[in-house]
Amino acid sequence: MLIDEKKSEFSVITHSSGNHGQALAWAAKQYGVPCTVVVPNDAPACKLAAMRAYGATLVECDPSERESTALKLCSQAEYEFVDPYDDYRVMAGQGTVAMEFLEQVPHLDAMLIPVGGGGLVSGMAVAVAELDPKIKIFCVEPEGKRLEDSLKSGERLWDQNAGPVDTIADGIRVLRVGTKCFPEVVRCCEKTVLTVDKKEIVRAMELIYSHLKQVVEPTGAVTLAALLKYVDLLSSYQKIGLILCGGNVDLKYLPFSRQ
Amino acid sequence: MLIDEKKSEFSVITHSSGNHGQALAWAAKQYGVPCTVVVPNDAPACKLAAMRAYGATLVECDPSERESTALKLCSQAEYEFVDPYDDYRVMAGQGTVAMEFLEQVPHLDAMLIPVGGGGLVSGMAVAVAELDPKIKIFCVEPEGKRLEDSLKSGERLWDQNAGPVDTIADGIRVLRVGTKCFPEVVRCCEKTVLTVDKKEIVRAMELIYSHLKQVVEPTGAVTLAALLKYVDLLSSYQKIGLILCGGNVDLKYLPFSRQ
Repeated sequence: MLIDEKKSEFSVITHSSGNHGQALAWAAKQYGVPCTVVVPNDAPACKLAAMRAYGATLVECDPSERESTALKLCSQAEYEFVDPYDDYRVMAGQGTVAMEFLEQVPHLDAMLIPVGGGGLVSGMAVAVAELDPKIKIFCVEPEGKRLEDSLKSGERLWDQNAGPVDTIADGIRVLRVGTKCFPEVVRCCEKTVLTVDKKEIVRAMELIYSHLKQVVEPTGAVTLAALLKYVDLLSSYQKIGLILCGGNVDLKYLPFSRQ
Repeated sequence: MLIDEKKSEFSVITHSSGNHGQALAWAAKQYGVPCTVVVPNDAPACKLAAMRAYGATLVECDPSERESTALKLCSQAEYEFVDPYDDYRVMAGQGTVAMEFLEQVPHLDAMLIPVGGGGLVSGMAVAVAELDPKIKIFCVEPEGKRLEDSLKSGERLWDQNAGPVDTIADGIRVLRVGTKCFPEVVRCCEKTVLTVDKKEIVRAMELIYSHLKQVVEPTGAVTLAALLKYVDLLSSYQKIGLILCGGNVDLKYLPFSRQ
């Protein structure tokens, strides 16, 4: 996608439960490009509000029809479709997270990275493989995704008709790692996948709030949850980097508050 | 107070609703010195738990009897009393906050600093007066403290028998600025005091959580609340520094969550 004089003639579209949608809406606003985001109708209200605040037009759909709704809209108008993960440009952008991390904290032994569609982990893993291939990359997933089966077989084994993962970690509900992301994950990540459930995620979230004083959404706590759960498996690594990604949470309904 | 070979023969005591008590308990633990903290019986559970986790012995009392209870214990045993604010050593320590702030963010026009007993603001104001006297220091107080009356008269006008301020900002409930702190506040701070109420504090707290992604307790949000409330009064200052001090909050009872 090139931003040029014709910018007013085109617009961008994506599907997102919120974080990618906010990023695209923000970027589009910088260039005066209209932005449409297809959102699942169960996305957190704070994410919808944030996308609207950045100027995006939202189109709600059933959680299982995000991609098909976006592609249908694409066929009806002059949209540039910016996939939330399965696009080499998006993956490359996500890879810069690894570059910044290693600039600030060199000499890691391992990194734990959350996986939904796989844009973040594939981009970061490719960057790490170039910068410091000794670092082991572990994927962290919500229970129900079964990424390890696919990684070990080298094939995307997920049912094409299955809906999203039923998880509190709404930022990584996408079931299937994208077709462009998957080969990079197979090539660059450990085959052992770390799986966490709701209780483990909420406990890690509470620890992050109370000790790191950081506001994270459930997705932002999955790697700490995995570190605590898989402490034996990870015991041979001295220095482990965690990605706490996503801080967009409905403050009125924090999962550890008494309601 | 000198830490030397006789350290096992003495112990420290203070009174605190939690933050100073945690700091003292932590410091005492580093030197193997027993630490007792007199706590008001309405202090947040998370602060009590944190002080205990740092090894402190807690003695509960009525909120209006913190100082008298601590002094009574002092008279009964060999304690070194470390006042939470009215002690030049404590004030000097708090002054390092200003030094670090100005190292990281030079060229401020004004700073907003929360005031309870006055240790933080007096230490910081003295440091700023030395380092960059052009910077205006504004005190921020919870409604009911009436610091401005005392500052303008140059006298500590508070009733000696009055109890603590009734405020959600439990870290600055102390009504009277200390006798050692007060002259420094008069000398170094603006006479106009910024006063905020519960609603303004909770709104600022929610903004900090949702936009800065920082976990703060109500006391940690009073300066942003003041900035938003006194935007006209402060409009002549280009670059304003805020102290967001205190992140110890009962996560189960955040004031903006639906309970």
